[in-house]
Amino acid sequence: MANFGLDDLRLVNPRQGWPRTDDYRDVAYSAAAGATDLLDAARVFASIEAAVGDLRAVYATTARERGQMKAVLSPSAAMGATAAAVGEKRGILFGPERTGLDNNEVAIADAIITFPSSPAYASLNLSQAVLLCGYEWFKAAHGDKPPPSTIPRVVSPPAQREMLLAFFNYLENELDENGFFRPVTKKPGMRRNLRNIFHRMELTQQDVRTLWGAVVRLAEGPRVEVKTRKRARQKNTGA
Amino acid sequence: MANFGLDDLRLVNPRQGWPRTDDYRDVAYSAAAGATDLLDAARVFASIEAAVGDLRAVYATTARERGQMKAVLSPSAAMGATAAAVGEKRGILFGPERTGLDNNEVAIADAIITFPSSPAYASLNLSQAVLLCGYEWFKAAHGDKPPPSTIPRVVSPPAQREMLLAFFNYLENELDENGFFRPVTKKPGMRRNLRNIFHRMELTQQDVRTLWGAVVRLAEGPRVEVKTRKRARQKNTGA
Repeated sequence: MANFGLDDLRLVNPRQGWPRTDDYRDVAYSAAAGATDLLDAARVFASIEAAVGDLRAVYATTARERGQMKAVLSPSAAMGATAAAVGEKRGILFGPERTGLDNNEVAIADAIITFPSSPAYASLNLSQAVLLCGYEWFKAAHGDKPPPSTIPRVVSPPAQREMLLAFFNYLENELDENGFFRPVTKKPGMRRNLRNIFHRMELTQQDVRTLWGAVVRLAEGPRVEVKTRKRARQKNTGA
Repeated sequence: MANFGLDDLRLVNPRQGWPRTDDYRDVAYSAAAGATDLLDAARVFASIEAAVGDLRAVYATTARERGQMKAVLSPSAAMGATAAAVGEKRGILFGPERTGLDNNEVAIADAIITFPSSPAYASLNLSQAVLLCGYEWFKAAHGDKPPPSTIPRVVSPPAQREMLLAFFNYLENELDENGFFRPVTKKPGMRRNLRNIFHRMELTQQDVRTLWGAVVRLAEGPRVEVKTRKRARQKNTGA
């Protein structure tokens, strides 16, 4: 629930009462992984009717369609309608883990939510059913996008064409000097293929600087101290 | 995974080895709730690189965007693309429960999947992340619809207009006799409102028979044996 901004938890007639005072209390608070406000604020009702009294619509979740004359919706359809009904309080009814909702409980709802799933393993557990409803609610209400990053992201702007062409020229020149374009009649085609590979990458300016640096190292050999570089080159060329 | 028709589970270098031979084995098989084929068929790899070697694309799941220069997709966008790439094997990479994937592991992937969620509680646990990816995969590959019902459903056809009008006539006649339409000048509007309520229900033929029967009972009083009905009526009307 907290993952998806839901905060109104209503418990109907819990077998062991609520709040629990035994060991289960610690288990529940630990499993809530920080979202303990939800547990503290949970309200207990004696019946489903009492729990849904103030709501404008109620969905019942079932593993399979029940043959009741009632609309059967996917979670996304139900949550899309809920997000569209701005200012209207709606509820989602989940059954006990083992038995699910019985037919009389389903009858209290306006419509049924059933989950798209493999016919061979259609049954989700309670936490999974809550998760999928919350997830579809969040997508419908807040959009299908990741939470904002907390890492300040330095986005390098896309490389301008001028920068790309300068890189291509440098690269192709080095390749040419090293005898890459053979036979020479194939050079125009090979050049085009090579450029297309880089164009597909949608390179940023930083990407081009990184690649350019890599090509320089490949072409010039290991980096050496400035004062010894000249000597090293002379040695490499046998001068 | 089994809920959503996924069956290729790959484990990378599990700390305690796999298959487990201790008590955890029983815990895992019990938690699988019938989907034990998945556990039996799980394959172990020594590295992520080895695990993804035969795949055409790999998604890395992260709780938040990581500032890597890599596409960040919602599960629905990633699974939509995966379903569209028919015949192309793709994989989803999940990190260990506590730490998630580190940056080097994320770098192995082609793109990142991050989950739409409340910024206050963005982090999903491993099973939730797997569930949401599986769910979006199933929706993209098989459609956003509930599994077929196993209960043979006898669907009553929609009530034909003729049947509805006959019911309205009967109802309005009974109401008229009982002095419902007062003041009489408001009768046309009251009649329209009443009919619109029933039209909104999109009644089936069975629905109309049910409602008609209910109105008959309300209008005629308790059902009595045929041979005594006449007498009962005479008594009611004081005859």
